[in-house]
Amino acid sequence: MKHAIPALFCLILVAGCAGDPDPTEDIHAVMRTAEAAWNAGDLEGYMDCYWHSPELRFAGGGGLRRGWDAVLASYREAYPDRESMGTLTFSDLDVTVLAPDAALVVGRWRLERGTEAPHGIYTLLFRRVAAGWRITHDHTSAAAES
Amino acid sequence: MKHAIPALFCLILVAGCAGDPDPTEDIHAVMRTAEAAWNAGDLEGYMDCYWHSPELRFAGGGGLRRGWDAVLASYREAYPDRESMGTLTFSDLDVTVLAPDAALVVGRWRLERGTEAPHGIYTLLFRRVAAGWRITHDHTSAAAES
Repeated sequence: MKHAIPALFCLILVAGCAGDPDPTEDIHAVMRTAEAAWNAGDLEGYMDCYWHSPELRFAGGGGLRRGWDAVLASYREAYPDRESMGTLTFSDLDVTVLAPDAALVVGRWRLERGTEAPHGIYTLLFRRVAAGWRITHDHTSAAAES
Repeated sequence: MKHAIPALFCLILVAGCAGDPDPTEDIHAVMRTAEAAWNAGDLEGYMDCYWHSPELRFAGGGGLRRGWDAVLASYREAYPDRESMGTLTFSDLDVTVLAPDAALVVGRWRLERGTEAPHGIYTLLFRRVAAGWRITHDHTSAAAES
């Protein structure tokens, strides 16, 4: 029992010092804004969900891209026009808060595009950066069948 | 400046109370142990890198599996014998510590198996659980070409 009181004291202080509101609603809002920008054909607006940094990482399809500019360039290449962007829906968003400035988010994406409907799952690390809660690491994969 | 001293006081207390050693080496060790178990054909030994919990999550190929037992079952189905397991190599491990009990890990995997060499990338959330640092969320994807 020797360490029980100091440990409790530390816990109370840490809790009191942190005092951060739960970011779950902020993160849901960032994802809704991104979805709406995509569905308005606004790729740069969509990209606001990402950390605007050369350290942003995007993993998927066996590769890793680094930097906001490189991620935007790869989106522009994959989605050259409004029609290719289709209608994006995010669902089943699950937020795990890890620290006052970090949360892991898992969810599903689906793109309705003519007769196709590619879909899959993503794992996102959100950090609280200067601009607010933003994705700093994205790992997205697609289901084999669309 | 009114809040500068209390904020500094809190920071010092938080740092002092946390006082956790960097888990990077522990995480590298867990990954090396998993790789060695796989290459010894020991699937259950390999599975020790994962949180032994129904809350373990494994994302990939568009789907999400939940629970240690379900993840083991899917490995057993995909790798029914020693030959199918090939030789696994993990590389380019990058650890970002997020909290005293949480770290994000990104790395590459490669399986040498006869004339095939499937490979890809993974994003892992490690948490410090009762057993030590373990993977609580795995998102793995494979490159299109092998």
